[in-house]
Amino acid sequence: MITLYTWTTPNGRKVSIMLEETGLSYVAKPVNIGRDEQFAPDFLAISPNNKIPAIVDEDGVDRRQTVFETSAILTYLAEKTGQLLPAHGPRRIEVQEWLAWSISGYAPMLGQWNYFANRAKEKTPAAINRFTTEAARLFSVLEARLSQATYLAHDFSIADISTYTWAAAVLHPFRDASPGVLAPTPHIERWMAEIAARPAVQRGMRVPEV
Amino acid sequence: MITLYTWTTPNGRKVSIMLEETGLSYVAKPVNIGRDEQFAPDFLAISPNNKIPAIVDEDGVDRRQTVFETSAILTYLAEKTGQLLPAHGPRRIEVQEWLAWSISGYAPMLGQWNYFANRAKEKTPAAINRFTTEAARLFSVLEARLSQATYLAHDFSIADISTYTWAAAVLHPFRDASPGVLAPTPHIERWMAEIAARPAVQRGMRVPEV
Repeated sequence: MITLYTWTTPNGRKVSIMLEETGLSYVAKPVNIGRDEQFAPDFLAISPNNKIPAIVDEDGVDRRQTVFETSAILTYLAEKTGQLLPAHGPRRIEVQEWLAWSISGYAPMLGQWNYFANRAKEKTPAAINRFTTEAARLFSVLEARLSQATYLAHDFSIADISTYTWAAAVLHPFRDASPGVLAPTPHIERWMAEIAARPAVQRGMRVPEV
Repeated sequence: MITLYTWTTPNGRKVSIMLEETGLSYVAKPVNIGRDEQFAPDFLAISPNNKIPAIVDEDGVDRRQTVFETSAILTYLAEKTGQLLPAHGPRRIEVQEWLAWSISGYAPMLGQWNYFANRAKEKTPAAINRFTTEAARLFSVLEARLSQATYLAHDFSIADISTYTWAAAVLHPFRDASPGVLAPTPHIERWMAEIAARPAVQRGMRVPEV
């Protein structure tokens, strides 16, 4: 049995989608980051960076296995089940490239755009402009890739899961907030619709129930 | 033979250090990002996100292999050589956790701190404050980890390489710019000194020669 510590955020949803896609048994434990529950000592023992999601797998290799950091969890679950990340070869590398892209540039910069454009009480034009430009660039890179391939690494993979939840949360709000900044993205829309139609994705996007 | 496309940045240096540590044969090709050389079509064909570093390995499995995204390159070279990333088990997961931490939170937020505090012509206090607070939090997480373990994942690994180059570039400038914000970090200093003493790290930090 796997315990998933999570909240209703794009990063949390990546892991609930992955657990649903792989068919692993799990229970979701909400960690309400609006109430600072991520700073509780029991949670920090699992997730020293005080972020959700994190997991505890009672059936790890030879022991109870804890894993923090979203992409490490996705990779762990993929390697545990042999699903959504090829074991070797160029297709494995492609998944690792786009997974890395999504967590190191795309998600952090979309997160900063969301903070400065939407959440911050004080509006700082220099920061909003910087992250608007970068978000548009990143969506353009995603659009170009999805004009060449059905999924980021050809077959549906953890790279798509990692990229999808942020597109689902941010693409349309970004367009509404920044009219005309981003050219049409028909390939992203096509890819989002295909992923949104997957039953496991629909179940994962409803976790945790709060 | 591996060709490394790189520049004199913390992300570029991660890969030259890794190539030196593993003893692989490579040539470094400077991509001058001050002159926008990362937008050249030949480079974009290898690195569609227009970022250095990227590699071309003429001796990939069954083919010429290109790899972009720093952490994907580090993982590729580790899996190619069997070095600095255990092949399985809890120690592999630990490397993947701290590698993910370094590329998804630590490096992007230190990069934003450096931009708003140092590089931006216009000073925006709200952004400087946000990234100062976050950088201090991340250095505190690093300090706490290195108070418990010699290296991030016990043995020296790609997680240390990925984290080191940003600490080397930013920790002391951060302290100078933000006196008193960050408590002393003796474990980070000890760890930086150990890594800086490695001959392969010293060679890698000098690449590319420009």
